[in-house]
Amino acid sequence: MSKRLKLGMVGGGQGAFIGGVHRIASRIDGRWELVAGALSSDPARAAASATDLGIDEGRSYGSYQEMATAEAARDDGIDAVAIVTPNHVHAGPAVAFLEAGINVICDKPLAATQEDAARIKAAVEASSAKFILTHNYTGYPLIRQAREMVARGDLGTLRIVQAEYAQDWLTEEADPSNKQADWRTDPARAGGGGIGDIGTHAYNLANFVSGLKTAALAADLSSFVPGRKVDDNAHILLRYEGGAKGMVWVSQVAPGNENGLRLRIYGDKGGLEWNQENPNVMTWAPFGEPKQLLTRGGAGLGGGAGSHTRIPPGHPEGYLEGFANLYSDAADLISGESDGALLPGIEAGLDGMWFISACQESSGKDGAWVAR
Amino acid sequence: MSKRLKLGMVGGGQGAFIGGVHRIASRIDGRWELVAGALSSDPARAAASATDLGIDEGRSYGSYQEMATAEAARDDGIDAVAIVTPNHVHAGPAVAFLEAGINVICDKPLAATQEDAARIKAAVEASSAKFILTHNYTGYPLIRQAREMVARGDLGTLRIVQAEYAQDWLTEEADPSNKQADWRTDPARAGGGGIGDIGTHAYNLANFVSGLKTAALAADLSSFVPGRKVDDNAHILLRYEGGAKGMVWVSQVAPGNENGLRLRIYGDKGGLEWNQENPNVMTWAPFGEPKQLLTRGGAGLGGGAGSHTRIPPGHPEGYLEGFANLYSDAADLISGESDGALLPGIEAGLDGMWFISACQESSGKDGAWVAR
Amino acid sequence: MSKRLKLGMVGGGQGAFIGGVHRIASRIDGRWELVAGALSSDPARAAASATDLGIDEGRSYGSYQEMATAEAARDDGIDAVAIVTPNHVHAGPAVAFLEAGINVICDKPLAATQEDAARIKAAVEASSAKFILTHNYTGYPLIRQAREMVARGDLGTLRIVQAEYAQDWLTEEADPSNKQADWRTDPARAGGGGIGDIGTHAYNLANFVSGLKTAALAADLSSFVPGRKVDDNAHILLRYEGGAKGMVWVSQVAPGNENGLRLRIYGDKGGLEWNQENPNVMTWAPFGEPKQLLTRGGAGLGGGAGSHTRIPPGHPEGYLEGFANLYSDAADLISGESDGALLPGIEAGLDGMWFISACQESSGKDGAWVAR
Amino acid sequence: MSKRLKLGMVGGGQGAFIGGVHRIASRIDGRWELVAGALSSDPARAAASATDLGIDEGRSYGSYQEMATAEAARDDGIDAVAIVTPNHVHAGPAVAFLEAGINVICDKPLAATQEDAARIKAAVEASSAKFILTHNYTGYPLIRQAREMVARGDLGTLRIVQAEYAQDWLTEEADPSNKQADWRTDPARAGGGGIGDIGTHAYNLANFVSGLKTAALAADLSSFVPGRKVDDNAHILLRYEGGAKGMVWVSQVAPGNENGLRLRIYGDKGGLEWNQENPNVMTWAPFGEPKQLLTRGGAGLGGGAGSHTRIPPGHPEGYLEGFANLYSDAADLISGESDGALLPGIEAGLDGMWFISACQESSGKDGAWVAR
Repeated sequence: MSKRLKLGMVGGGQGAFIGGVHRIASRIDGRWELVAGALSSDPARAAASATDLGIDEGRSYGSYQEMATAEAARDDGIDAVAIVTPNHVHAGPAVAFLEAGINVICDKPLAATQEDAARIKAAVEASSAKFILTHNYTGYPLIRQAREMVARGDLGTLRIVQAEYAQDWLTEEADPSNKQADWRTDPARAGGGGIGDIGTHAYNLANFVSGLKTAALAADLSSFVPGRKVDDNAHILLRYEGGAKGMVWVSQVAPGNENGLRLRIYGDKGGLEWNQENPNVMTWAPFGEPKQLLTRGGAGLGGGAGSHTRIPPGHPEGYLEGFANLYSDAADLISGESDGALLPGIEAGLDGMWFISACQESSGKDGAWVAR
Repeated sequence: MSKRLKLGMVGGGQGAFIGGVHRIASRIDGRWELVAGALSSDPARAAASATDLGIDEGRSYGSYQEMATAEAARDDGIDAVAIVTPNHVHAGPAVAFLEAGINVICDKPLAATQEDAARIKAAVEASSAKFILTHNYTGYPLIRQAREMVARGDLGTLRIVQAEYAQDWLTEEADPSNKQADWRTDPARAGGGGIGDIGTHAYNLANFVSGLKTAALAADLSSFVPGRKVDDNAHILLRYEGGAKGMVWVSQVAPGNENGLRLRIYGDKGGLEWNQENPNVMTWAPFGEPKQLLTRGGAGLGGGAGSHTRIPPGHPEGYLEGFANLYSDAADLISGESDGALLPGIEAGLDGMWFISACQESSGKDGAWVAR
Repeated sequence: MSKRLKLGMVGGGQGAFIGGVHRIASRIDGRWELVAGALSSDPARAAASATDLGIDEGRSYGSYQEMATAEAARDDGIDAVAIVTPNHVHAGPAVAFLEAGINVICDKPLAATQEDAARIKAAVEASSAKFILTHNYTGYPLIRQAREMVARGDLGTLRIVQAEYAQDWLTEEADPSNKQADWRTDPARAGGGGIGDIGTHAYNLANFVSGLKTAALAADLSSFVPGRKVDDNAHILLRYEGGAKGMVWVSQVAPGNENGLRLRIYGDKGGLEWNQENPNVMTWAPFGEPKQLLTRGGAGLGGGAGSHTRIPPGHPEGYLEGFANLYSDAADLISGESDGALLPGIEAGLDGMWFISACQESSGKDGAWVAR
Repeated sequence: MSKRLKLGMVGGGQGAFIGGVHRIASRIDGRWELVAGALSSDPARAAASATDLGIDEGRSYGSYQEMATAEAARDDGIDAVAIVTPNHVHAGPAVAFLEAGINVICDKPLAATQEDAARIKAAVEASSAKFILTHNYTGYPLIRQAREMVARGDLGTLRIVQAEYAQDWLTEEADPSNKQADWRTDPARAGGGGIGDIGTHAYNLANFVSGLKTAALAADLSSFVPGRKVDDNAHILLRYEGGAKGMVWVSQVAPGNENGLRLRIYGDKGGLEWNQENPNVMTWAPFGEPKQLLTRGGAGLGGGAGSHTRIPPGHPEGYLEGFANLYSDAADLISGESDGALLPGIEAGLDGMWFISACQESSGKDGAWVAR
């Protein structure tokens, strides 16, 4: 096993959601140890959260600025920081740690505003530190398998990309006490609604697998729940460079959908279909032959999936293992064991920010095409 | 059992496809007897086909005009004619039989051109005969169940309609000897490509179940196969009166899809999902409760589906039985036993023609919205 | 199309179930016309039923004996009779029609008693008429495909057969007004309980597909519902000649199962799985390669399934079409157009009778093996 | 978060399989830290493995005896030892650590022989230390949900249990270089073949969920692969106290099955169906109502599943998270935070040993019933 790296965390204190996911993901392969944190903007909660997590009192910081400075100064300072705050608090810590020369693992989307995104971009360019954006679905083994199959031409020339991410948890007006719903439906803190929170995932995944570059999009955003200030449903058309076309459906108000992230890609030689809710199987349809059920590491598969999985096929890996693949790849990248070619970074983040703004612009112009 | 009616047929001779489907559908419930036909424009093929089908020589006609005149004059003339010719030969016979006072059961789409559609509309309005358009998917028991559930408010206020009809049989350039592919990809005979052949089905089904009226659509049509003169992929956005939104995906070049007609409808109280390829089960998700698997005539269902099915749940009915429901309903309507409220007619046909032309117009204007 | 044959029916009057299924199955391909019947032992119901079905008054008979004699004497007498009575009324009409030289299409199981079965066997041997037993599930296209794949060695040497037929409709004590439940749970009229009604189907299907011959079975029968006089759950082990092993589970008290007839067969080169409730797809797993989804008439399939189907893949055929395949094959056999090699006959019927009695004998001996 | 405990490991060195799974499972919730090990009987491999895993040189032991003595003597000695050796090396370390007063987490089955099992039983009874057997499938959230539903009577009186565990990885003669296949098909090291390796899992799971106690079983074991010395397919009938009946199918030679562990349980009020390969959904069929799809922590579920899950429904958890639930429960039990009521222990282990021997005895007596 390779060397264990030291992780810090900004955000993710008591009552938070995604911080806990990052911590599990970082632990699964034993590549990271959480040793420092600025876990909450509330000092008491920050301290209590650090105690919970077994972080030494001396490395529980009152602010991310303080943490960046202190950790950069330590001989045994953290190898990377995970930023797991709401979107509007991504740029501050990202810039601070990058400037301090500390590698950043940042939750998505990149930021709540284009200005913040530009600040992060500038900091990334100015820093020797790495910047990784946790578009975690790219870590699913069969997604990497799919990307490999597309890249080597199994599907032929791509024509059609159908992506969707449907949920139902915001079908009704959110309970104000639901901390997650609260900030995710607040334009100031979230940036976009569903298009930012989950739409960027679907958009990113489609590009990750297809390797296509977006040429333009047209969008029709809706806010179905009375009083909602952000989009909760989005119907989006895509045109890719080279002529392929796509559709993206994003919804948080579709009853019966928990985390219905689905991707279907078709070329002139075959088609692939994958559904995040049962991620260990993928349908591969070589044109003119029977469809095949490819399983994670399963019979006759080889390649992509097999190299990102821990247990034999038929024993399901899930969301946390896919997420863990990003953390383990990050460890490899930071420790110089790989080039991290599969890891989403600043380019994916900026592309997601373009997606959010283009959706809003197009929808504001009655669905006019907005060029990339 | 009710009285058996007499059926005539225009088209459907040797080598044809959909005529055979209509004949089986008409036989399943024993409500129709095929007694007359103008089965082909080729006299030899017409005669041979009639012999095959057990039609008396004297009622095998050389042309639909002759047939309409002769059958109208007989005491035991046909109760209805089934028109199963390519789209550009719908209007001629439809008008002729309607003018002769003979009920018409016409394959979809209504016509190859708006002019033809208008001629049929005028003939319907001028005739006392009935006009039925075989949007056969509306005959599936669970589709009728879904319509009933929407109508009685189970889903609450509708918000989102996701319809799609994906095939792969035209992924490559069609073999010229494939008669079906030949006329269906010829603008002169078909009118539209995929949007006419299968898109109208998806569009019709969405409206049939939802009860919504279209306000506008925006479309991006593609012809991916080199040399193809009609669309083979369509990405369509819909706006409905009252604020609901929709997406329709139509493709004939998506490898792995045989007849992937799927409908998903979401309101503020629940969602429904149905897939034509396994039509005996439907997912019903009342918001905040576990999803249910509704089966055709199954436990706790009652209502819609149960009244349009022949055998107990768990024994699948299929495409032909759904199609047969239209023929049996037509028999009920024509013999005065019901008002045929569920049968698609001229209005559905004209709506489909609008759909085709609006898709073409919008796509020609770079996806601009076209109002209904 | 081939010549239309004349069908008579014994049983199947108003209020019956399986008679209606036979009638639809006989109509689907237009190969049969129902022209005579002894539809009920109750004369008034027999007459009324005949009127409903459009049978001439003169060919509606008061008894099957009368019908056999009269039809045999007519120049235009029936080509075959369908016997759709409860099990204990199979032998009487079967023998009568066979002795009259009229072909018999008989519902399964063969009879309610071994004595009746022996009488039918003797009559078949003494008659030139054909005897067909409607183990209708053998008519499903993919079942015939599976049989063909096994026969040509795709699965290698067979090792394991897992068959099951699970229902739930008898989970509670049957309502005495339920005519179907009434006779099917009466030992005198049914012979066996679930093992006869549906177990014989599962057993037959396993043998039909595998081509294996049973060497012995061991069974544990239960009657879970208080007061039930026949089995409602059966756990059965099988040994085949040549060393393959099998399991059969039969239940009518398994909530959530409508008609869960499933077959899984494994050899040393591959495995097949099929489920009657979604019969248009079958899983084929060549060992060491990805699993394939074979569809009825679908890509790359060829062979078995394709020759027993009416419509393109993706448009589901169901229970009635599978049943219709037996009627159309019977028409071919009777009119000399084929040898009817796929049609179950007296051998299958006797094998089913052995299955019933062996299950009862084994269960009575605490599960001892009973040799074939 | 609760206190982190210290874990030692016996076995699981380089080249082993299940040791790695235990380590990930122990890490996921951050409740355990691996600090000591006797990782291999080969000293060089033991040392190298310890280095890989970051275990201090001083706590990498040459034998489990040495480790038990040394760790028991330390103030900061391990809180538990994980025994992940082949079956025939369970008893030695289990007894040693129990005698040293150290809690034991042992892989299944309990042992390779009844004698070894008895030694462990005696040691458990004589020790104050806890003994946990990793029947890890009991850790799946929906399995715990199912157990809860059965216990509170949702299914009514249980009647039928259908359990199966089918694999295909031993379809052909094992490559001698496959270390896993090698010892698992060796009677001396494994004890049983499939019945021990996976059959005990299926048997245990059925009992865990149903709460039923076995009264007797009858088995037909096969060794289909030429030269195989242990069973590779087992057909088993079960009788439970109180009258319920069951079937267990165990196979390692069923092509297309990766880890097909399925459980179906039926009572007079409803039925449950669950499949390990997609463990985040379970079908619940209340008799006479539509089937429901229960998801891990999903809508309307509450109770069992929700309390053993980390992330929202729709984001799949898998095998490793289910396994981790046992480690976290063990941590709770050992630290006195819970009574560990859901953890399998010595009783489950002995029941599994009875299952193995009873299968062998019954099969040797031509399938005679063997009482519990």
